[in-house]
Amino acid sequence: MTNRTARAVHLSARPDGFPTARDFTYVEGPVPEPAPGTALVENLLLSVDPYHRGLMDGGEGGFDLGAPLEGRSVGRVTASRDPGLAEGDLVFHREGWRTHALVTLGRDGTRKLPGHAGVPLEAYLSVLGGTGLTAYAALTRTAALREGEDLYVSAAAGGVGTATGHIARLLGARRIIGSAGSAAKVAHLTGALGFDAAFDYHDGPVGEQLAAAAPDGIDVYVDNVGGDHLEGAIDVLREYGRIAWVGAVSLYNGDRAPAAPRNLFEVVHKSLRLEGVLVRNHTNLQKELEDLLVPHLRSGRIGTDTTVAQGFDHTVDAFLGLFRGENLGKMLVRIDG
Amino acid sequence: MTNRTARAVHLSARPDGFPTARDFTYVEGPVPEPAPGTALVENLLLSVDPYHRGLMDGGEGGFDLGAPLEGRSVGRVTASRDPGLAEGDLVFHREGWRTHALVTLGRDGTRKLPGHAGVPLEAYLSVLGGTGLTAYAALTRTAALREGEDLYVSAAAGGVGTATGHIARLLGARRIIGSAGSAAKVAHLTGALGFDAAFDYHDGPVGEQLAAAAPDGIDVYVDNVGGDHLEGAIDVLREYGRIAWVGAVSLYNGDRAPAAPRNLFEVVHKSLRLEGVLVRNHTNLQKELEDLLVPHLRSGRIGTDTTVAQGFDHTVDAFLGLFRGENLGKMLVRIDG
Repeated sequence: MTNRTARAVHLSARPDGFPTARDFTYVEGPVPEPAPGTALVENLLLSVDPYHRGLMDGGEGGFDLGAPLEGRSVGRVTASRDPGLAEGDLVFHREGWRTHALVTLGRDGTRKLPGHAGVPLEAYLSVLGGTGLTAYAALTRTAALREGEDLYVSAAAGGVGTATGHIARLLGARRIIGSAGSAAKVAHLTGALGFDAAFDYHDGPVGEQLAAAAPDGIDVYVDNVGGDHLEGAIDVLREYGRIAWVGAVSLYNGDRAPAAPRNLFEVVHKSLRLEGVLVRNHTNLQKELEDLLVPHLRSGRIGTDTTVAQGFDHTVDAFLGLFRGENLGKMLVRIDG
Repeated sequence: MTNRTARAVHLSARPDGFPTARDFTYVEGPVPEPAPGTALVENLLLSVDPYHRGLMDGGEGGFDLGAPLEGRSVGRVTASRDPGLAEGDLVFHREGWRTHALVTLGRDGTRKLPGHAGVPLEAYLSVLGGTGLTAYAALTRTAALREGEDLYVSAAAGGVGTATGHIARLLGARRIIGSAGSAAKVAHLTGALGFDAAFDYHDGPVGEQLAAAAPDGIDVYVDNVGGDHLEGAIDVLREYGRIAWVGAVSLYNGDRAPAAPRNLFEVVHKSLRLEGVLVRNHTNLQKELEDLLVPHLRSGRIGTDTTVAQGFDHTVDAFLGLFRGENLGKMLVRIDG
């Protein structure tokens, strides 16, 4: 069933603000041959992420024009000249946005997937992948969430947000509050995902809606947005409250940073802590995350929370959809959909 | 030598913005008699602090109109009906702004001073007092300063600032940078206090001056100011940098909070941590602080860094002087000056 043509998405122009389909080109070529020490992987699933937008501006560590984009992916080894990898192995690697990749075990984060029985492959790019690890690091390390504490998470229906909800519940959080950008997402949060309260940030000032949803305050805020969400959270955080700041999706399109919170000085009055979270600094927590989640993924207590575009041809659409809020949970692409 | 008239400063009006002498009244009365379980203390030194201004606005925990103000003080027991206190004992308590106080050991923070030989009494209201403890908590707990790290402290010539400089040096800081509000203070920082670099914030944009003083960046910022100092520090902090936010002197006069830093989102990109410090949450560190500093106070390696107004009649002047930047180090009043 191996497709003998390899396809990849190249960055053909640097997006000006929001990306458009014209910034990308689908390129075809022969399937590469593995050189000694490498293995050929046929990708099965790939991840498109808001942070990719930032890398499209170029600069240090950014994407080059006319070259394939990169991102997390899961695939199967179809030919190997890497002694650590055998045909048939499932691997996680960072050469996404393409149908075939050459990888080397242990290089650039390439690892064999443990292949937990009963766990869907999507999980390794969502709750067991970068977004899950971000949420896990934010909750257990940055915010040090304790049993019985109350939590607010913004962009709660996204990849990091849904993982935050699941993990916070497993860690014993008391009240979990989320915000999202549509009535359908709010209903999903309080329904299938079991949030205690949720609101649509379009429905009124975030600070007022959050205060109504958290009349007794919160202990932890996982911030995916910044701006008025951060300001509202500072208002309702209790003494010794912690903010784990993960990102601000609007920033990735070259917008100015959201206005800094006018009440920032409450950090002193309430002995709050505000700390940034970069998942690349927490890769050592991967096994802890799997130990926590795998039993619940197997039992079905928690799902993978993914929106999966079907077919490699929809990779760019899936990426653009992130900025239109089209995803519930983590946005993925199934190559052969 | 006991003065048979007791004097106290009462708050006679709530200050509108900056406090003025008209907001205070010196009140005389008989020296109080200790009731069973209390001791009469004749105060020797008292502390006036920027945070007192905030309490003058009233509200929860604030000062009442027509009542004596409160603050840290050191005095000697002259009569006791408290079995834990004997005539002649030196005590620290919080009934300042007056010449005589009735106290009870262990209540409201009243404690016997250890009376370390060779340590001036002023130290217990400065480097061994609230400002020293604030600096110690900020450096060792909130910021977790490590040996060899580089530090910036704003309002460096004030009570918390001078203590921060001393303690950071003893903890092994590499480069210590301070800012202050006059050329004389800057000279004092780089001279007697041994700062590696210092600048006058009137001399140009804080961010530019700080970047020039810290071309290789900093690891820790102890913030007594907020606003452009905080923004400048965020710019030069290295990855994993920590900000211990202690206060913002301008706020205590009812001003609006200083503008929040426009670059706050760097907290995410650089994995920074911003955390508030309230000394009342760190009183358990008092002995650690004394163990660290007392040998150096005895040897004269570090001084008490105080500006001492002579005579109880100058209490209000000393307090008002805080907001004119008249103090080098901690501002105190010697009652019988």
